[in-house]
Amino acid sequence: MTYRAGVVGAAGFAGIELVRILARHPEFELVAATSDALAGTRIAQVYPAFTGVTDLAFSTHEGTDFGSCDVVFLAVPHKAAMGMAPDLLAAGATVVDLSADFRLKDPAVYEQWYAPHTAPDLLARAAFGLPELTGDELAAAAERRAAGEAVLVGCAGCYPTATSLAAAPAIRAGLVDAAAPVVADAVSGVTGAGKKATERTHFCFANENVEAYGVGTHRHTPEIEQILGLEGRLVFTPHLAPLNRGLLSTVTLPLAPGVKAPTTEELVALYRDFYEMSPLVSVMDAGVQPRTASVAGTCRAQVGVAAHPAGVIVATGAIDNLGKGAAGQGVQCANIVFGLPETCGLEEIANPV
Amino acid sequence: MTYRAGVVGAAGFAGIELVRILARHPEFELVAATSDALAGTRIAQVYPAFTGVTDLAFSTHEGTDFGSCDVVFLAVPHKAAMGMAPDLLAAGATVVDLSADFRLKDPAVYEQWYAPHTAPDLLARAAFGLPELTGDELAAAAERRAAGEAVLVGCAGCYPTATSLAAAPAIRAGLVDAAAPVVADAVSGVTGAGKKATERTHFCFANENVEAYGVGTHRHTPEIEQILGLEGRLVFTPHLAPLNRGLLSTVTLPLAPGVKAPTTEELVALYRDFYEMSPLVSVMDAGVQPRTASVAGTCRAQVGVAAHPAGVIVATGAIDNLGKGAAGQGVQCANIVFGLPETCGLEEIANPV
Amino acid sequence: MTYRAGVVGAAGFAGIELVRILARHPEFELVAATSDALAGTRIAQVYPAFTGVTDLAFSTHEGTDFGSCDVVFLAVPHKAAMGMAPDLLAAGATVVDLSADFRLKDPAVYEQWYAPHTAPDLLARAAFGLPELTGDELAAAAERRAAGEAVLVGCAGCYPTATSLAAAPAIRAGLVDAAAPVVADAVSGVTGAGKKATERTHFCFANENVEAYGVGTHRHTPEIEQILGLEGRLVFTPHLAPLNRGLLSTVTLPLAPGVKAPTTEELVALYRDFYEMSPLVSVMDAGVQPRTASVAGTCRAQVGVAAHPAGVIVATGAIDNLGKGAAGQGVQCANIVFGLPETCGLEEIANPV
Amino acid sequence: MTYRAGVVGAAGFAGIELVRILARHPEFELVAATSDALAGTRIAQVYPAFTGVTDLAFSTHEGTDFGSCDVVFLAVPHKAAMGMAPDLLAAGATVVDLSADFRLKDPAVYEQWYAPHTAPDLLARAAFGLPELTGDELAAAAERRAAGEAVLVGCAGCYPTATSLAAAPAIRAGLVDAAAPVVADAVSGVTGAGKKATERTHFCFANENVEAYGVGTHRHTPEIEQILGLEGRLVFTPHLAPLNRGLLSTVTLPLAPGVKAPTTEELVALYRDFYEMSPLVSVMDAGVQPRTASVAGTCRAQVGVAAHPAGVIVATGAIDNLGKGAAGQGVQCANIVFGLPETCGLEEIANPV
Repeated sequence: MTYRAGVVGAAGFAGIELVRILARHPEFELVAATSDALAGTRIAQVYPAFTGVTDLAFSTHEGTDFGSCDVVFLAVPHKAAMGMAPDLLAAGATVVDLSADFRLKDPAVYEQWYAPHTAPDLLARAAFGLPELTGDELAAAAERRAAGEAVLVGCAGCYPTATSLAAAPAIRAGLVDAAAPVVADAVSGVTGAGKKATERTHFCFANENVEAYGVGTHRHTPEIEQILGLEGRLVFTPHLAPLNRGLLSTVTLPLAPGVKAPTTEELVALYRDFYEMSPLVSVMDAGVQPRTASVAGTCRAQVGVAAHPAGVIVATGAIDNLGKGAAGQGVQCANIVFGLPETCGLEEIANPV
Repeated sequence: MTYRAGVVGAAGFAGIELVRILARHPEFELVAATSDALAGTRIAQVYPAFTGVTDLAFSTHEGTDFGSCDVVFLAVPHKAAMGMAPDLLAAGATVVDLSADFRLKDPAVYEQWYAPHTAPDLLARAAFGLPELTGDELAAAAERRAAGEAVLVGCAGCYPTATSLAAAPAIRAGLVDAAAPVVADAVSGVTGAGKKATERTHFCFANENVEAYGVGTHRHTPEIEQILGLEGRLVFTPHLAPLNRGLLSTVTLPLAPGVKAPTTEELVALYRDFYEMSPLVSVMDAGVQPRTASVAGTCRAQVGVAAHPAGVIVATGAIDNLGKGAAGQGVQCANIVFGLPETCGLEEIANPV
Repeated sequence: MTYRAGVVGAAGFAGIELVRILARHPEFELVAATSDALAGTRIAQVYPAFTGVTDLAFSTHEGTDFGSCDVVFLAVPHKAAMGMAPDLLAAGATVVDLSADFRLKDPAVYEQWYAPHTAPDLLARAAFGLPELTGDELAAAAERRAAGEAVLVGCAGCYPTATSLAAAPAIRAGLVDAAAPVVADAVSGVTGAGKKATERTHFCFANENVEAYGVGTHRHTPEIEQILGLEGRLVFTPHLAPLNRGLLSTVTLPLAPGVKAPTTEELVALYRDFYEMSPLVSVMDAGVQPRTASVAGTCRAQVGVAAHPAGVIVATGAIDNLGKGAAGQGVQCANIVFGLPETCGLEEIANPV
Repeated sequence: MTYRAGVVGAAGFAGIELVRILARHPEFELVAATSDALAGTRIAQVYPAFTGVTDLAFSTHEGTDFGSCDVVFLAVPHKAAMGMAPDLLAAGATVVDLSADFRLKDPAVYEQWYAPHTAPDLLARAAFGLPELTGDELAAAAERRAAGEAVLVGCAGCYPTATSLAAAPAIRAGLVDAAAPVVADAVSGVTGAGKKATERTHFCFANENVEAYGVGTHRHTPEIEQILGLEGRLVFTPHLAPLNRGLLSTVTLPLAPGVKAPTTEELVALYRDFYEMSPLVSVMDAGVQPRTASVAGTCRAQVGVAAHPAGVIVATGAIDNLGKGAAGQGVQCANIVFGLPETCGLEEIANPV
């Protein structure tokens, strides 16, 4: 193993998925998995999928020597991450943060949607982690890291990842009306609601049910707007559906005035060109739609795109919210920053059925 | 029992739900349930929920005396219904059709999306069955029936019902831009895909998966456009999610230019006013979203509405696709046409959990 | 409405199912639904299935006038019920208890599995509520109630109901070895684990999983042994499966020595004879197995039975754990005790699909 | 890659799981995946999980050059496999058969449960593929293969694998009554019912349902009896539950007369000793039960065991029916026969959630 890796907040859903990926990663060695609440407990006792796989126990944050880590993944709630990152960076560890704390470039926007930012100076330094769309930022970070700097990556959230992968090629090609609202209706599996046992995550309330939530108020809104340059024009409505893993975002993009309406085939060609160098994103054939089940458990994404007679483009993006939407993307970003192949340790294939 | 009722196509999902409702309806007596494929088989052998409930067997269409029926429900595929309706009406039975055959007013539109219409003269005579929005048509049909006429109702489809219940109050109040696209992203349970065993309905493909389908091509598009007056402006994208029953439509309605943006509270008040006389539709409190599970197994609908800072209204409608979206609505229409209370036999409460 | 009914512990899963049934019962009028934790909150806010159905709010136990109730249903945890029953009975209300507190005839057995019994004198007075098997006890209670006495019913639990319905006809016919172990492996939906949000009931842990629990230690063991006269011979292993409602118990009954092995057809005939007067229990045809989905949402039960070449009988019983396994059974018992038809208000048919 | 591998019947559920495993196996190179029905179609079109992973298309059986294969996996129905194996062996390929055709040692037993055997001479030559229990047979086959022989492995079925892993340590230790019935009640996910779209596998019939099937008649009965030496004493009842992958077998083993009843801790120690050399089987701590979700998507197994006061042992075994119960086990057997580490290419960890 070339690099030593720690996971902070390893007992949460994104954290434990990091543990799962890192446990088999050929270049990152998992040396610490923290959970203050469960410190001392073997991981396998909490998540029996690790029975017979590892005897590693959760450690406390305080009792963990992060100084020996080349990279630390933060899988903690927002606000906690920005409290931890400065010390970790100072200790020389590269930080890959899955929380919202280092995603928004403007501290005022962060404050509006979350809380006052306690490490605003780091915002400019943080690379935004959505490799297919922010490759330049990550490449620059990789260079800085190669030069000995501890770098910081703020990984994209789950809804922003699926939505942006679906929308970006059309927007960046200038096809989309820069004045009209863009509608993103997205459906997530229940792991997206986190590990906390609540009425919302109770099997009997989530099962056999679909509902919208956070209409007009979901915190991923400014992040998507930032990625896609939509400033105040995004109508984002998330929904919950009864599955563990999987997130589908259906994005309706009104054509820019004066643009000749593309055919679905032209759009597919455009999208394939866009993602030509992105091994984890597949653009579906014309007329074929992505399936969340086909990427579940992986860091892959499927994107579909169609021309619509009402003068819009309908693009869909499917990911595993814990994979490409969280832990997988974190590892993908770490791979890039450490100069490894982008897909290293991320070659899993979803269960075909 | 006051009236005799028959169900044609009783072995399909909408048909058997009709059987379930009629088996306990206080005013309609179920006298025939046809299925040419299963004729002679007891209903309980095919659908064991009827074990110990009824010994009725499916009969053939040919062998069924519809002349003795006051009302015949058609739960057959499109094209089949328009072949049957003329004879049934001629025999004096009121016909409540759950197929698409008598929904579209314009035979040219029907031909464009389905096939040449074989009974175009009946289109003008058919009342459109979505009582909360087409009460006048149904009231007129009720009068004609009371005067001795066999009347015809073409009930709204499942997606059109949920979408229109969500969108109509805002549109009819003049709040919605008459030139911009309206986006309806809807999610249906798998009963919506019908009884036929296919790869699409195979448990192992449908489970743990969400996907869009029929993007830009779904046949419910012209029907929704007709109800809401959207002519060519509807962007309707249906999705499949892993639940049996339930359909949620999330509709994004751009505000008309010059209209003062309403608050969510004002919208809720407007919607409550609109549905004041509709016992089966509930408008949720501001900030509360409908849940499909809360109407599953019933003919009820829940509608949510919210103002959105991007200058649009986001409205959501939840129904059971087999209940308010099919069989329940058929019975509700029959109730009205026969002068019964609208909710007669439809008082079921969804499983709270 | 003839009788006034109250539900104590109405916010739990069994309690709210009682509310659902009583809200439409033609003879019992629901006058109070208590929940100390949620007092003052409208039921529909907690369980949105009641939106548009009732404006009733939960009340406190203390603030509820049970004296005016003809019957009080207790849907509270064990230990709580035995604390409440004496006062309610003293106030003249008939008590139908869904907890374990009045099921076991012997206070020593109760103490062994639960806690010291605080109202042991009531144990002898309590009728055991599993009408198909303890009709005499309930008939006697009905007579006492008709004579003006407030009576007490301790309803059977969910696993005991399904297991005993499957096993009793064979055992009572003397077909079963009185010395060998009887194995009951049962599978329950997640509503059986209760409303409390825990890791066990978290969607993401319960979904896509089957597991056994409480092996050799489940508290329904002595109850089943009491009903079936198995004293120390029951091997009962409950399992959890990913569905909301439904409980299937598969019981393996070794044939008594010297008994001529019956055929499956003979067993079906025996079982049908046994349940001839039980409108809510259906015995499946030879070769047909019960389905939990076919009784979900109802108070019905399906029983299957088969001869097995290894010299045993395999009997299966399917119920809805909240219906025939809890709330429905409570109402069925109340019907009997109040001289109403057994199925009054319990005529629901499960969703056929 | 060291060895060339082909999969016959690759479009079925076990076949496609073989494709998934072999696509990433470091020592076996997948060179052919046959499906006569789908020949010419790219795998990814049928199973979109392979989108972006492989461009391989299904080939016809006839058009496939199996002579160049070192190993051929048969994932075809019983009867088909015994028709293919002789030619493949003659062509020099080692054959790993997932069907039932080479599991039963006695052709008369095969004929009784399936059909007359067309290659009975191969039965004695076939190694039974359940490595943890038939290591000797597989080791001998590995030696023969190393000496240049094309060998034949008949892999254990899914129910036999889970049931035998749970029961074998107790039985082989002489703890189990050799005269009394052994009860195995097992629950399988729906992939166990195969790819064919039927009413049984329709989402809307399988979802929210548990049912038993094949009571007393399931063809895995003689196979389990053969492995465990139970001849006519096994009471095996399979059930279907609403999950894709996962199989749990709960086995009740009556203690042999005169044996001192072991404690649960003693049983756990015995089982751990038994499986000490089996890296894919984990024995759970006393009081902890296996979860199917914790092995889904893998070739791992979890086994639980408990002493029961009724004088029996209750043992439980959890596997993924397509993993350790089919494709994974086939690859595990191939690993052994080819002298590779048993777990080669099978190191996957189940989704922790």
